[in-house]
Amino acid sequence: MDKKLFVVLMAGGVGTRFWPYSRNSKPKQYLDVLGTGKTLIQSTYERFLPLCPKENIFIVTNEDLADITKAQLGVDDAQILVEPMRKNTAPCIAYASYRIAQRTPDAIIVVSPADHVVLNEVAFQKTIHKSVEQAKDQDKLITMGIKPTRPETGYGYIQYLNSKSPLKKVKTFTEKPALALAKKFIDSGDFVWNSGIFVWGVQAVIAALQKHQPEIAEVFEEASSKFYTEQEARAIKTAYVQSKNISIDYGIMEKADNVYVWLSDFAWSDLGSWSSMHEMNKKDDEKNVVEANAMIYETRNSVIKAPKDKLIVVQGLDGYLVGEFDNVIIVCQKDQEDLFRRFVNDLKARPDGNDYL
Amino acid sequence: MDKKLFVVLMAGGVGTRFWPYSRNSKPKQYLDVLGTGKTLIQSTYERFLPLCPKENIFIVTNEDLADITKAQLGVDDAQILVEPMRKNTAPCIAYASYRIAQRTPDAIIVVSPADHVVLNEVAFQKTIHKSVEQAKDQDKLITMGIKPTRPETGYGYIQYLNSKSPLKKVKTFTEKPALALAKKFIDSGDFVWNSGIFVWGVQAVIAALQKHQPEIAEVFEEASSKFYTEQEARAIKTAYVQSKNISIDYGIMEKADNVYVWLSDFAWSDLGSWSSMHEMNKKDDEKNVVEANAMIYETRNSVIKAPKDKLIVVQGLDGYLVGEFDNVIIVCQKDQEDLFRRFVNDLKARPDGNDYL
Repeated sequence: MDKKLFVVLMAGGVGTRFWPYSRNSKPKQYLDVLGTGKTLIQSTYERFLPLCPKENIFIVTNEDLADITKAQLGVDDAQILVEPMRKNTAPCIAYASYRIAQRTPDAIIVVSPADHVVLNEVAFQKTIHKSVEQAKDQDKLITMGIKPTRPETGYGYIQYLNSKSPLKKVKTFTEKPALALAKKFIDSGDFVWNSGIFVWGVQAVIAALQKHQPEIAEVFEEASSKFYTEQEARAIKTAYVQSKNISIDYGIMEKADNVYVWLSDFAWSDLGSWSSMHEMNKKDDEKNVVEANAMIYETRNSVIKAPKDKLIVVQGLDGYLVGEFDNVIIVCQKDQEDLFRRFVNDLKARPDGNDYL
Repeated sequence: MDKKLFVVLMAGGVGTRFWPYSRNSKPKQYLDVLGTGKTLIQSTYERFLPLCPKENIFIVTNEDLADITKAQLGVDDAQILVEPMRKNTAPCIAYASYRIAQRTPDAIIVVSPADHVVLNEVAFQKTIHKSVEQAKDQDKLITMGIKPTRPETGYGYIQYLNSKSPLKKVKTFTEKPALALAKKFIDSGDFVWNSGIFVWGVQAVIAALQKHQPEIAEVFEEASSKFYTEQEARAIKTAYVQSKNISIDYGIMEKADNVYVWLSDFAWSDLGSWSSMHEMNKKDDEKNVVEANAMIYETRNSVIKAPKDKLIVVQGLDGYLVGEFDNVIIVCQKDQEDLFRRFVNDLKARPDGNDYL
């Protein structure tokens, strides 16, 4: 239990890739995607609980999701940082970092998405412990790298310089490579997946913001005089309005020269698609993920999900998503990830679209 | 308006081929299968209304369906004949015939299923008029024959002896031939589809019952002393318990030698399958029948049907039924008719099956 250790869970995302299961009012992190009895944010929160005092874990989300966050995690208001608008991950991390730094200048921060899945909790916690030790010099930006098991084109890849330590200096970042390139990365042996879980000293990340995103650093420095006061929300709103919309990867990690990757050995998935949900879940003999009161005939490699008070009859499908999610019934090829963006975009263009988003 | 003309609509059937749209509590005849704003039994009833006094139209159904029949047709109790159990069409027709004969010994009866579709109402009524004339000798059993438009294997075929009149003597009946045989029938030119609509004098059908199904004739003759009294239901129950379970086609039509077919020219379908529902309905450019609030992508030849308060998203299907019907969601190949029987049989074997049948 490390009192200088802080955790920032980023939970403000509203993805389209899990639509219609995931909705604006209940994005993926608030869903029990794997049918474990716990939502993804609950599992994420609990994974960090043994590492630091409860009150050191902050959840950054938006106003609409504050209530569901409190309800699902049983956290205090003080643990929730409300973003006034979505400006990608760099402003989110800047806000949390400046705020933590004000009270704990030598804090170490773990930044993690709230909607990923980690299977080996103990290995995960050990990895965090070790990388936290490395971050205490307040001079390294560490990202957790995952040994790739397939040429996944939906992930970011990190190329590292070899060394004896599991902490490797980063050479390059590559976002979502084409399949041929992903295969080369895997064959080369010196690439890992970028999990989006970061570990750094708060001074290290603030220094990086000042150097590579000085405008963002400036507006949050300015807001910091109001932290922990009644004017905080207003000051933060001003900061967000002025802040660039940019990811931490693009804004800092790809630019900084003190970036390291820790070669991790826990099982991880960003659960970024119906395909990955299918992959991570328990399957029947025909490789179907079935979470429904279902009668299934001549159907394989599919995800079948519906409320238990309905009977769902499925016949003659291979590789489909079939389900009912609130007021939406869907049947489509589950591995075509672009489809879900297309559906959501088409809905945005409909006058009644918001009823279904 | 012919006071001697009576109509018997057979509406007691509980088919499986339209499941899950059609249910035990609301079989196909009580559904607006073609989206016309009227259920099949309503359309059938209205088709006969101009031909005879309203009170001459009887609907034979079971006890559970008596209320919905009255509600949909606005008929009097006296027009509903309740069958105490299902014993196929011969007992049903025997009951109605003996009952009508008692008050109108020279009645002409049209017997018709309540769940078929007829498109040319005027042609239909003219055909009925003409065949009723032919039946007045109380010596012919006439069935309506439909000129076949395709080698349909789900229908019965009637081979006739050629003559100048549209009323042809029947040579053979063939139920649901294999495709090769159906093709031969069509090529030969002297086969028509058996619509299951019959026209005959009440004495002709009673004579045929006495000759070919004497046990059935006997039990209904015995019950007839209680017709139009408070003891009718009880007497009819006794008759049904004793009666054989047999169709009019097999029990009489295939045996009698005074059977004729009237070559009709109205458009007819027994709407016996999702395929035929698809065929008869209005389709979009991709040949989909869509009765839903739907977003449809890369999908053809399909039936998409769901309550309008749901959004249904369908992608990547050819020849499927996709829909929600009360508490059942279904996705399956619509042209495989055996499937629906299979689904229903499998449900019958489930402890909760009745919730969905």
